[in-house]
Amino acid sequence: MARTAFVGLGVMGYPMAGHLASAGHEVTVFNRTRAKAERWREQHGGRVAATPREAAEGAAFVFTCVGNDEDLRSVVYGERGILAGLAAGAVLVDHTTASADIARELAAACREKGADFLDAPVSGGQSGAENGQLTIMCGGAEEAFARAEPVMRAYGRAVTLMGPAGAGQLTKMVNQIAIAGLLQALSEAANFALRAGLDTDRVLEVISKGAAQSWQMDNRWRTMLRGEFDFGFAVDWMRKDLAIAIDEARRNGAPLPVTALVDQFYRLIQQAGGGRWDTSSLIHNLVEKPARTG
Amino acid sequence: MARTAFVGLGVMGYPMAGHLASAGHEVTVFNRTRAKAERWREQHGGRVAATPREAAEGAAFVFTCVGNDEDLRSVVYGERGILAGLAAGAVLVDHTTASADIARELAAACREKGADFLDAPVSGGQSGAENGQLTIMCGGAEEAFARAEPVMRAYGRAVTLMGPAGAGQLTKMVNQIAIAGLLQALSEAANFALRAGLDTDRVLEVISKGAAQSWQMDNRWRTMLRGEFDFGFAVDWMRKDLAIAIDEARRNGAPLPVTALVDQFYRLIQQAGGGRWDTSSLIHNLVEKPARTG
Repeated sequence: MARTAFVGLGVMGYPMAGHLASAGHEVTVFNRTRAKAERWREQHGGRVAATPREAAEGAAFVFTCVGNDEDLRSVVYGERGILAGLAAGAVLVDHTTASADIARELAAACREKGADFLDAPVSGGQSGAENGQLTIMCGGAEEAFARAEPVMRAYGRAVTLMGPAGAGQLTKMVNQIAIAGLLQALSEAANFALRAGLDTDRVLEVISKGAAQSWQMDNRWRTMLRGEFDFGFAVDWMRKDLAIAIDEARRNGAPLPVTALVDQFYRLIQQAGGGRWDTSSLIHNLVEKPARTG
Repeated sequence: MARTAFVGLGVMGYPMAGHLASAGHEVTVFNRTRAKAERWREQHGGRVAATPREAAEGAAFVFTCVGNDEDLRSVVYGERGILAGLAAGAVLVDHTTASADIARELAAACREKGADFLDAPVSGGQSGAENGQLTIMCGGAEEAFARAEPVMRAYGRAVTLMGPAGAGQLTKMVNQIAIAGLLQALSEAANFALRAGLDTDRVLEVISKGAAQSWQMDNRWRTMLRGEFDFGFAVDWMRKDLAIAIDEARRNGAPLPVTALVDQFYRLIQQAGGGRWDTSSLIHNLVEKPARTG
């Protein structure tokens, strides 16, 4: 069992750190809002650190799971930051969905300290974090991956090394690109079925057996058509992820015409007040709303 | 066993009619190019008719599987057409992917003759037709469906009544709408993975386990990335199907922003000489081509 630190106890990090503790690891947590860290300790034991640096001190593995590149910089750098406390030989594992650039930057910064870095964004959502069934896409050195992988198994169902630093983030971008356009197509199909007067349950039964099948069709068709979006992966988070992917594509040159368009459709969902709705809420842009009167 | 007629021995109709014969039905075939009908008879027995009308005469079930609305009108109407020979009490089953309008029109025309009509477009492609594993989406009266369904079982794995006349065609449109945008999203994702320098096989392994999964991802990711498109469902046919769906949406009011855009991307594939390529060839628009010199 290892001495670990976990920085960032959000909807993902909170249960992930819990799985580390349940697996028998020593866990020191840090969270910007300290009350949440105290609550975590009451539930799982371990220790609460006053700063990310204090959490990192003496830990063999330091995990981060925060909002974005900027949040990550704020917990890693500076006098109170992780790097100031990171021991030589330790591994910093970042579960944030962030840019490939910051992954490469942090890998270099860790190397200077004689430590290792893995970018390790996850998929599987809140329920995957709670059930310990996340998919984890890693970028970094093989040796560091081999050491960290058994620890990540506490909450990872599939933990894969994708390539050098940044490769985890790039893989997560591929995943989000594939999902965005797929969900728009599914929304157009479901709304068309509705307007055509078809029995949408029967349509699902028939088309989900063939070439139109997708995880999203199997799991979101019915809720989309009922206008249920108060669960799952939020539009605000998807827009953050798509911004990263579109920005990376500006550098690597990959054209993303539909992805960029769907990002704009998600903006319309935000404007409609749906920033916290599930990503399947794209159908809300398409359904007919009552005419405005007066 | 029933007395049947099959009009249209294309890549789909030829093996479908063959399954009817193998199931023990009497089959009279008609094909615009007679030589193909003669070849079919040599292989499967049965009779070759000189006109669609002659094929229909005395048949309890008349099947059509032709190119589009216009082809359908040319085999149904007129002195040599199916309606002129269709017996009262017979069922005309149309396997063409056509408009919902012509389905309703033919349903009315059959009713006048004391006969029934089912629109019954299929999915599953050429291999589904050859293996007798098609998905058949039907529109029409329950009673007529109940009579025709056991006969269609000769080549149908899933045969479902979707609703009244036109409902089969509308369901097929929903299927094609869901596929078009999904394939564009998958193309953008695969090409991004390539340009990002990722191991695309490993990416597939990881992302196909989660929320980005689709039949197309499972079955087309690798071939797309290898630029293999000489199989499957042709772009020309997809454009025909999308034209029908976009036209129907003009009437029922369903917005199809991405579907309409992807239809235009398929036009670019046709211009690149890919009209006969598989629908997964959308990635061809995205991959970098060698610069033109001189």
